[in-house]
Amino acid sequence: MATIASKVAPNTQAFSASRLERFDRVRQFSLDQVTPLSVEDMGLQAMANVSPPKWHLAHTSWFFETMVLEAFEPDFEPFNPLFRHLFNSYYETVGTFHRRDQRGLLSRPSVAEILDYRANIEQRLHQLSNNSDDQTWAEIADLVMLGTHHEQQHQELLFTDTLYNFSQNPMNPAYASPTTPSLGHIPNKSTDQPLALNYLRFDGGLQFIGNSNEQFCFDNETPRHQSFLQPFRLANRLITNGEYLTFIEAGGYQTAKHWLSDGWATIQNNNWLRPIYWQRSDSGWQQFGLLGLRPLNLLAPVCHLSYFEADAYARWAGKRLPSEAEWEHAAESQSAANSHSRPANLAESNQLITVPCDHGEGLLQLYGDVWEWTASPYSPYPGFKIPAGPVGEYNGKFMCNQLVLKGGSCVTPADHIRTSYRNFFPADARWQFSGLRLADGID
Amino acid sequence: MATIASKVAPNTQAFSASRLERFDRVRQFSLDQVTPLSVEDMGLQAMANVSPPKWHLAHTSWFFETMVLEAFEPDFEPFNPLFRHLFNSYYETVGTFHRRDQRGLLSRPSVAEILDYRANIEQRLHQLSNNSDDQTWAEIADLVMLGTHHEQQHQELLFTDTLYNFSQNPMNPAYASPTTPSLGHIPNKSTDQPLALNYLRFDGGLQFIGNSNEQFCFDNETPRHQSFLQPFRLANRLITNGEYLTFIEAGGYQTAKHWLSDGWATIQNNNWLRPIYWQRSDSGWQQFGLLGLRPLNLLAPVCHLSYFEADAYARWAGKRLPSEAEWEHAAESQSAANSHSRPANLAESNQLITVPCDHGEGLLQLYGDVWEWTASPYSPYPGFKIPAGPVGEYNGKFMCNQLVLKGGSCVTPADHIRTSYRNFFPADARWQFSGLRLADGID
Amino acid sequence: MATIASKVAPNTQAFSASRLERFDRVRQFSLDQVTPLSVEDMGLQAMANVSPPKWHLAHTSWFFETMVLEAFEPDFEPFNPLFRHLFNSYYETVGTFHRRDQRGLLSRPSVAEILDYRANIEQRLHQLSNNSDDQTWAEIADLVMLGTHHEQQHQELLFTDTLYNFSQNPMNPAYASPTTPSLGHIPNKSTDQPLALNYLRFDGGLQFIGNSNEQFCFDNETPRHQSFLQPFRLANRLITNGEYLTFIEAGGYQTAKHWLSDGWATIQNNNWLRPIYWQRSDSGWQQFGLLGLRPLNLLAPVCHLSYFEADAYARWAGKRLPSEAEWEHAAESQSAANSHSRPANLAESNQLITVPCDHGEGLLQLYGDVWEWTASPYSPYPGFKIPAGPVGEYNGKFMCNQLVLKGGSCVTPADHIRTSYRNFFPADARWQFSGLRLADGID
Amino acid sequence: MATIASKVAPNTQAFSASRLERFDRVRQFSLDQVTPLSVEDMGLQAMANVSPPKWHLAHTSWFFETMVLEAFEPDFEPFNPLFRHLFNSYYETVGTFHRRDQRGLLSRPSVAEILDYRANIEQRLHQLSNNSDDQTWAEIADLVMLGTHHEQQHQELLFTDTLYNFSQNPMNPAYASPTTPSLGHIPNKSTDQPLALNYLRFDGGLQFIGNSNEQFCFDNETPRHQSFLQPFRLANRLITNGEYLTFIEAGGYQTAKHWLSDGWATIQNNNWLRPIYWQRSDSGWQQFGLLGLRPLNLLAPVCHLSYFEADAYARWAGKRLPSEAEWEHAAESQSAANSHSRPANLAESNQLITVPCDHGEGLLQLYGDVWEWTASPYSPYPGFKIPAGPVGEYNGKFMCNQLVLKGGSCVTPADHIRTSYRNFFPADARWQFSGLRLADGID
Repeated sequence: MATIASKVAPNTQAFSASRLERFDRVRQFSLDQVTPLSVEDMGLQAMANVSPPKWHLAHTSWFFETMVLEAFEPDFEPFNPLFRHLFNSYYETVGTFHRRDQRGLLSRPSVAEILDYRANIEQRLHQLSNNSDDQTWAEIADLVMLGTHHEQQHQELLFTDTLYNFSQNPMNPAYASPTTPSLGHIPNKSTDQPLALNYLRFDGGLQFIGNSNEQFCFDNETPRHQSFLQPFRLANRLITNGEYLTFIEAGGYQTAKHWLSDGWATIQNNNWLRPIYWQRSDSGWQQFGLLGLRPLNLLAPVCHLSYFEADAYARWAGKRLPSEAEWEHAAESQSAANSHSRPANLAESNQLITVPCDHGEGLLQLYGDVWEWTASPYSPYPGFKIPAGPVGEYNGKFMCNQLVLKGGSCVTPADHIRTSYRNFFPADARWQFSGLRLADGID
Repeated sequence: MATIASKVAPNTQAFSASRLERFDRVRQFSLDQVTPLSVEDMGLQAMANVSPPKWHLAHTSWFFETMVLEAFEPDFEPFNPLFRHLFNSYYETVGTFHRRDQRGLLSRPSVAEILDYRANIEQRLHQLSNNSDDQTWAEIADLVMLGTHHEQQHQELLFTDTLYNFSQNPMNPAYASPTTPSLGHIPNKSTDQPLALNYLRFDGGLQFIGNSNEQFCFDNETPRHQSFLQPFRLANRLITNGEYLTFIEAGGYQTAKHWLSDGWATIQNNNWLRPIYWQRSDSGWQQFGLLGLRPLNLLAPVCHLSYFEADAYARWAGKRLPSEAEWEHAAESQSAANSHSRPANLAESNQLITVPCDHGEGLLQLYGDVWEWTASPYSPYPGFKIPAGPVGEYNGKFMCNQLVLKGGSCVTPADHIRTSYRNFFPADARWQFSGLRLADGID
Repeated sequence: MATIASKVAPNTQAFSASRLERFDRVRQFSLDQVTPLSVEDMGLQAMANVSPPKWHLAHTSWFFETMVLEAFEPDFEPFNPLFRHLFNSYYETVGTFHRRDQRGLLSRPSVAEILDYRANIEQRLHQLSNNSDDQTWAEIADLVMLGTHHEQQHQELLFTDTLYNFSQNPMNPAYASPTTPSLGHIPNKSTDQPLALNYLRFDGGLQFIGNSNEQFCFDNETPRHQSFLQPFRLANRLITNGEYLTFIEAGGYQTAKHWLSDGWATIQNNNWLRPIYWQRSDSGWQQFGLLGLRPLNLLAPVCHLSYFEADAYARWAGKRLPSEAEWEHAAESQSAANSHSRPANLAESNQLITVPCDHGEGLLQLYGDVWEWTASPYSPYPGFKIPAGPVGEYNGKFMCNQLVLKGGSCVTPADHIRTSYRNFFPADARWQFSGLRLADGID
Repeated sequence: MATIASKVAPNTQAFSASRLERFDRVRQFSLDQVTPLSVEDMGLQAMANVSPPKWHLAHTSWFFETMVLEAFEPDFEPFNPLFRHLFNSYYETVGTFHRRDQRGLLSRPSVAEILDYRANIEQRLHQLSNNSDDQTWAEIADLVMLGTHHEQQHQELLFTDTLYNFSQNPMNPAYASPTTPSLGHIPNKSTDQPLALNYLRFDGGLQFIGNSNEQFCFDNETPRHQSFLQPFRLANRLITNGEYLTFIEAGGYQTAKHWLSDGWATIQNNNWLRPIYWQRSDSGWQQFGLLGLRPLNLLAPVCHLSYFEADAYARWAGKRLPSEAEWEHAAESQSAANSHSRPANLAESNQLITVPCDHGEGLLQLYGDVWEWTASPYSPYPGFKIPAGPVGEYNGKFMCNQLVLKGGSCVTPADHIRTSYRNFFPADARWQFSGLRLADGID
């Protein structure tokens, strides 16, 4: 299969390394990421909620062009005036945008043209950096930092979207082959057991959550503020595929009382009987993933759940999902004490799937593997102000009808995730790398 | 037009007055309420979200039959076994139920049969009361109390649903004629001005909200718990039709930046250009209401807004909606100090529409006129437990994708509303008596 | 249950009997027809394709008011100006009309007001007749005749629509009780056999079809014209429930090859597994009808089939449906020879359901019982001209995507049906009294 | 832009030229046809009714593999067992098939793999030919002939689908550049006039239509049979863009009386105000086509009309569309007499758009330019038999809710079109190269 890797010209300019080191690194990852994809894979959009890989590549460049170059480049000229429309996602203040559900119809511009577009934007960023004094650059740097985190979000989406796209193809395409020997071992035999599930107690009280803003964070993580918590308990690890299978086998999807009303309607109307990528075959349960169709790993964290499914599991188990504040407070409390035997399963591990929990103390798997659904609707923090200008549309206007997820997943870059990070999706979204950790009150 | 009033037999039994005084009073109000309706009006269901008036009458009886009589009546026999299915709303644990969007197709049972059903249930409740010792009755009384508040909720819905039903009829039917002389005066001339809008300051801090449970409350109002509030300011009164008209005339419905992303999509997809019951005629703005089509009263509180519209107005005004905790804390703070010059415009006022705010000090119009949208998603309070049995389905399973409204409306009975009362609707619901009060932070 | 019969004032005016005899008789039948219905039944509209009984009563009056009175009455004043909009069905040249799918929301005007409207129109028609000289009346009479046949069409629709409305009610309301003793005998035992199915040969050739226009007919039956027919054979009787059951039991609904492509998609998408009103119970097959839920009569003609189902049955049976020209030519050929042992099962028989075929010679059951689907799309006859004025919208604009049915049904008035009559419905319509007769070519 | 042409290996085998000459030629045209397309264009499916170009390439190969090789090849092995599912269009008797509306999601197999598939099938066809005696080949040859005509149908669809796909891209991609100098001249000035429209008289009578089957034809063109025609008149040429523009400017799309009821609903519900590919710009009317966005040629035949639009134009013009039998009889009558000054504008002209009519006598533009909508529903001819086996699903099951079009278009291969050819599409289809010729009766 033809890949696009060979078409990427090496970047030979002399960059101002310190200013654009992160930028260069993040941009390169996007290109590395699409190496296993064919030109044809790059155009796929299997539902309105996903975007074609090539669109992600173009949109992340559009972001730098529109938010940085247009504001700071002398004699700014757009690379292609039509791209302002085609690769705008949802920024009403920037102008019109192409219909979201028709991004997959853009066979033109080609992948090659989009790669040219990327290279052009990068070259101009470097030129801008070379020509900017420190004071101007200080202004620019914040937007560039935002742009790199924006691109990292789209890198995760490129993974989730590709997985969904591939799941609609009866040929079961695999994005990659297993990269580590350990993955060859699928510990789903009855003798294998997950690490014991236990609950850590937290006293609650008046606690700070949110970002104190010393390093980069998104606007929605601010302002840091006090929140009052009742005492609570939080599970030491994520729920596994095996545990979720028990819920299924106990009739979980057939029992209304476990479900929110909207959740029950959702699974009935769409005939959901199991997590989105699970299949039952003659040889047992299988899961489709970025590594293709493989036997279900009963010890690995359950992944690609909607909020409705995570919540139903928790009710069935007699527990509940944690609130965002509980999760964040607990994570902050543990950060010093916590010594993992293995680094978090984030994008850098290159596993691309969830993996069983190592033995250890404290709160395990807080970061990586799966985004953990919280019970907290995505609302502005007290005192949150929407920034002026187009970047004001980045987060604020989505603070309705979504729920917060915490901790990043196996396809989240390590330098992109933070304790205060607030991911958010609607309750029925299940194509993300999303799972759950149980919580409980204290009577 | 034929009405159903004459078909209601007077209730001549000797009731145990103290035990069922509230029950009798609430039940009678349901009958009084449908007096102006024709038998044909009683069957209308103009959209899936509303129910026919006769269905409300039957369902509220079903509630007592299923939750009380079935549990406590010796030798319980259903009035009609099919009613268990037809008039179950959404109680999965009780059994099947008729499709919600087809309640309007039930020409049988007739209104007359449903009135018989009501009378039968009432008679059996009285018999049960007469035959119960105090200890048993204590158990029963809680469910009866719940049933009366349940019926009061449906009384409000019967008003809102009838208004929606009538709004779909080009004949513009009026539920009632104006009952008070004051309503004959529509103070919409340019010389009339609303009471000045100003903001009361609250210091916030760690405050209790929720119901302490000494009197009746719904489960969702509990447990009373502490919540930490930043200092904030709350407007002294509701936003008026005139103020909302200024928002419209300023292009509010054409300006994306005022709107949540979902809200902008909603008004675009449905071509919303004004509140649901507003019309523009040659002689100026009019509003359809329970009193028919009348000139828009610029001084009266704006009513029948969705959350999206209330939120957009607040953004346009440079303010925000209050959180539920802010509203409740402020309301508790004011309860002693507040001396209205006029009682709240609740159902007892029999105005059936919103009315201009009287002059006065403190927080005005806290109760009645319109349910006030808060910025708070409808979530369980910390420590909330879903009760066992069917009543557990009353509130808990709806705690997702809805927002809390406070304070009651002009069609809410006075003995039904409380400071801790949590009403909830999805963000796009606009057929309720819902409006807004502005809030603001303190920098 | 309250009925509306008592509200119908006797018509005591001295009518010009000869001119309006048919008018009076048809109008009276509409009133008789709704006698078993409650006021609440009168407002039902269980899907967009059906209309509430009261709307039928009003619309047929609107037709006379708009097409006759407005054109001929001196100083014409509308009964109610809004009725012109509310009770216009689809006449674009007359003006606007109420949304078809919202006719069920018109609780106002009431049934009583609509009955007043009917009486008023009738009184004015008589006055017009009394005041018209013969020449003027000759002009009027054609429109009055059209109006009576229009009303007869709506009388059949009132039956079909009421049946559909009632079928959506879990209480299984019956429009009427069996009126003849013979219906008490349900000959569905295995020993009962239908009259033998055999085929009559017709030589075809150049034959006339269409109406020669000496008596009343609709415009779509003209002009009478020649059509060339291949030799063909036509079955002596209709297909029975028992025969259709054999098709079902042979996997008819599970076998794609019997079905038109659109038909297969229709039954798959809507999960059709049997005719619309058939149910399988523990005690065997039942059919819901105007007489309520009754055991399936295996000897009676199968009824309420869509074209797709009729066509699939014919393919499965190795035959085909007749063309309209074949049916009409065969019927004309037989009209002299045919002597039924029993009159056709039309509305006057008051059976309201299909009944087994009597023994006899020739083509039996040509009229009544069920409308017979033909294979002929509903197209204009050669030379067909759309009449000028509103009546031009009566038939011509529907000549697309529908198929012709012939012969009338058990709810068609006898003086309304003709050999040349062209009924038409879309291929997926199955709430009509529609069935099939097989045809075959001659090799 | 990368094209796929270079990947097509030259076919160097020694073919049995006489047996597979047509096969080879048709197959080569498919490859030539996609030369201007990028790999990315090849996967586009902009609506459910169109298929991706690569899917057309694969499906036409699947047809030969399934209908020919599987039946006749000794030791048949599928090229890829999954292709049987992926590239089956709608043959229920062959087995399952991939969802029609998801053909655009098949990034795998790649274009390169599909070209390999094509080459493999071709090589095996040649091998089969080389190994078959004349008797066996006689059997095979009919299916091969069918397969080549099947492929030619898909070649036309590949053009129509690509045009639709490209029309959804704001970049307005052009499939090709104008190939003939004459196209550089757009004669849309007011001084240019089309050839005068006049009507040729035909006497009608009992005439034969359908194919006498001496050469190849589709089953739906048989049996040749007699049909009785009234005298009629048929226009000498097609209706032009300029004439259709007059209809638009006369308010054609705003006037209900010109339209069939379904047509009026269609244009209202979808907001159709002009033909699908027309745009109004500051510089006048433009039309998007395979040559990109160009000024509207007022003298060229109007193209890409739905039946509803063609029919409405005819009503507005006081004429009607011809029946299929009229068109076919007239075309047969003219075939000897007709001497065009220029060959028909079929695919071989490589114009890819409609062109103005040359001056001449008789019926002009009968073949090519646009498929001409007839008023005839697509029904089986008297005596039509559905063939046994999978090929029986080719035509017969679509004979419902479609209308017949005659004569071929500017993208129809010359050796694919015949007088008896019956193309068919639903009344609202407008992405085909479809237009109209007027007819009239004779009083």
